[in-house]
Amino acid sequence: MTERRHTKIEVLAVGSELLTPFHLDTNSLFLTRHLNRLGMQVSFKTVVGDKPDDLASCIRIASERSDLILIMGGLGPTQDDMTRETLAATMGKRLIFRETLWEQIQDRFRKRGISISEVNRKQAYVIEGSVPLENPNGTAPGSWLESGGRTFVLLPGPPREIQPMFLSLVLPRLQEKREGFQVRKTLKIAGLTESKTEDLISDLYPGIGPDIDLTVLASPGQIEVHLTAFSSLSEEAAKKKLTRPVEAMAERLGENIFTQAEEELEAVIGKLLRGNQYTLATAESCTGGLLSHRITNVPGSSAYFLEGVQSYSNQAKTRLLDVPASLLEKHGAVSPQVAAAMAENIRTNSGATFGLGITGIAGPTGGTEEKPVGLVYIALAGMGNTQTEKNLFLGDRETIKQRSTQKALDMLRRRLLRSLRDQREEE
Amino acid sequence: MTERRHTKIEVLAVGSELLTPFHLDTNSLFLTRHLNRLGMQVSFKTVVGDKPDDLASCIRIASERSDLILIMGGLGPTQDDMTRETLAATMGKRLIFRETLWEQIQDRFRKRGISISEVNRKQAYVIEGSVPLENPNGTAPGSWLESGGRTFVLLPGPPREIQPMFLSLVLPRLQEKREGFQVRKTLKIAGLTESKTEDLISDLYPGIGPDIDLTVLASPGQIEVHLTAFSSLSEEAAKKKLTRPVEAMAERLGENIFTQAEEELEAVIGKLLRGNQYTLATAESCTGGLLSHRITNVPGSSAYFLEGVQSYSNQAKTRLLDVPASLLEKHGAVSPQVAAAMAENIRTNSGATFGLGITGIAGPTGGTEEKPVGLVYIALAGMGNTQTEKNLFLGDRETIKQRSTQKALDMLRRRLLRSLRDQREEE
Repeated sequence: MTERRHTKIEVLAVGSELLTPFHLDTNSLFLTRHLNRLGMQVSFKTVVGDKPDDLASCIRIASERSDLILIMGGLGPTQDDMTRETLAATMGKRLIFRETLWEQIQDRFRKRGISISEVNRKQAYVIEGSVPLENPNGTAPGSWLESGGRTFVLLPGPPREIQPMFLSLVLPRLQEKREGFQVRKTLKIAGLTESKTEDLISDLYPGIGPDIDLTVLASPGQIEVHLTAFSSLSEEAAKKKLTRPVEAMAERLGENIFTQAEEELEAVIGKLLRGNQYTLATAESCTGGLLSHRITNVPGSSAYFLEGVQSYSNQAKTRLLDVPASLLEKHGAVSPQVAAAMAENIRTNSGATFGLGITGIAGPTGGTEEKPVGLVYIALAGMGNTQTEKNLFLGDRETIKQRSTQKALDMLRRRLLRSLRDQREEE
Repeated sequence: MTERRHTKIEVLAVGSELLTPFHLDTNSLFLTRHLNRLGMQVSFKTVVGDKPDDLASCIRIASERSDLILIMGGLGPTQDDMTRETLAATMGKRLIFRETLWEQIQDRFRKRGISISEVNRKQAYVIEGSVPLENPNGTAPGSWLESGGRTFVLLPGPPREIQPMFLSLVLPRLQEKREGFQVRKTLKIAGLTESKTEDLISDLYPGIGPDIDLTVLASPGQIEVHLTAFSSLSEEAAKKKLTRPVEAMAERLGENIFTQAEEELEAVIGKLLRGNQYTLATAESCTGGLLSHRITNVPGSSAYFLEGVQSYSNQAKTRLLDVPASLLEKHGAVSPQVAAAMAENIRTNSGATFGLGITGIAGPTGGTEEKPVGLVYIALAGMGNTQTEKNLFLGDRETIKQRSTQKALDMLRRRLLRSLRDQREEE
């Protein structure tokens, strides 16, 4: 990574509720998305409560280490809302009452038919030398302050107030500070662990070029490689820088990459099924419906998803899926034979191109030495054969459910890719 | 709330992905919940990327302003993961290779049948003077370091690793630093909107007492009222402060409260079904398996959940659920008649006490003027009658799925409560 001379950016979210177990600062995601496109990176995000001392310390630290400081929240009319006052005091500035602002605020209240309270008066004060930013969606005006070589932007906390204010009044001013153009590419991977992924690509890291950032992220059953390129010239130039590194990684990772777009595995499968006019039916035991839930999260999935069955009980496996009682007795419900029968029978009965069957032990109880928690058999039936895989997944109940469905979807994806390759060879 | 002499606590989340538009630090919510119970409040939350200089600056600042610093992430095997190294360097400590740790890590890989890669070796280094914290769910050990009057706790980033490690190895050590007793009571509500809830209880707010915090939270189909009390003496004393306000609110909200414990609606239903030896089967269309997924997220749900069907196609409604083709033709798949037939037939066919049927339009497409997106019919069959409700839910596809399943579960809950009341009256 090159150390370009960045504008160091810090996002400071103010509000005691953001320090409870219930609330996260989500505004920073919105701000980051827009800053990134201007080639600007956020270096620090800080959350602090409504205590003026703590807030003052955060403002001092931010003004020492950052060039652009976006402060959100604490602009309201209540006693807790002290951001404006604290910033002024910390920067040694006076607060000046602005008659015009006070009129705007009173006007807003009149329009909404609400009687204004004297406490709102404090929202009509501005920090000397700052530019007030009008708030068409609330009473708290924002503020743009340049002081001591730093830029402070004060923004309201509620998403429906901060977003329009940022887009209409802050972003145009930030264009002047644009540092270039940033483009991001994400390789999403299924079927590899994080360390396997690294083993395949880590020797490429030194060669990907100095102005490309790389991050590897892992979630159950999924790895993401994020590559970000920067150009001071144009978006095209930034895209071009990514071409070779992305190609090199794609070559190493091959079909383990299920998408280079910002989409989920179930959406990729949806496109593959749809494009070939294939259909799908599912028979789930331990995943209890998560597989069909994921498949049907994709808008338009009714075009290829025909039906699903959760055969939690043995009786349901027999009645809904025609799994012979003798098979269940001989091999047990958690067995490759039963997984295969589930997949084959849901396929045949529904008339779908493919059937997926999952049977296993999601835990936390129900495991034995021979069949432990995490043992999951997944079968894929279709196009003349049935493939069954044994898995031993780690994690809690929900993680095992998630990993099982990820594996099932990935088996189907690989089968679909294989069949497309075969078709192409035949042609 | 009273101003006590706090241990200043800072949570520092490390990872460049947390500075992108895609990821939030959610671990801090988990940590905060547990710290709060010890009467401890978080004063600062900081997010910083994988750049060692930035991380070092955050560690220095935290060690100046905070007493207890919880650092999460950046303990993995990759080149990006520099938290251990940076903390050691910042605090002027050496890193020491621990043969026993390396064996533990290798052992973990062997057990999973995965060949270990040399990059994992760095995870076997510990900061001198620190206590390593074993990680049963991953390869990255945590660490507890007391230095210069400050306590640093290094924790892995993935939730399924940090949570068990924090509970089993960090929380017991934090007991010594306990500052008091905070007790929280959560009233979880289904079947009311946020404003309806406020209408019922807001006149009680002034009377709940000065050292009780109240927060109302809304999510799709669910409202939560959180009441928090603090006592420096004992958990009992804090609990006692909550008794009267909770009783007053419970009286107003009645059966709209589905639990006063930290549990999901599906767990409440599980207990009610189980306690009465009732069983359940589900037939879903627009929710695509989310209902059975939620039901089967509850450990032990196989005791009462028999089976589920996702009848996405009309053919599946007919074949798997015996919904007459004539009914589908006459009223359409999204109709109260079809919802009722789905619920009744899955109940009869499975032999369950109750059957739930859901049919609707989750969108974004497929809506008409007569049957718009968000129109969802939900039927509950059992105990001699079938109840069908028409709903018009707002939101995107996933929100409509969520609201639909919430409503279905709540219909079942209210029915179960009614039947218990009837039983009691008969006795």
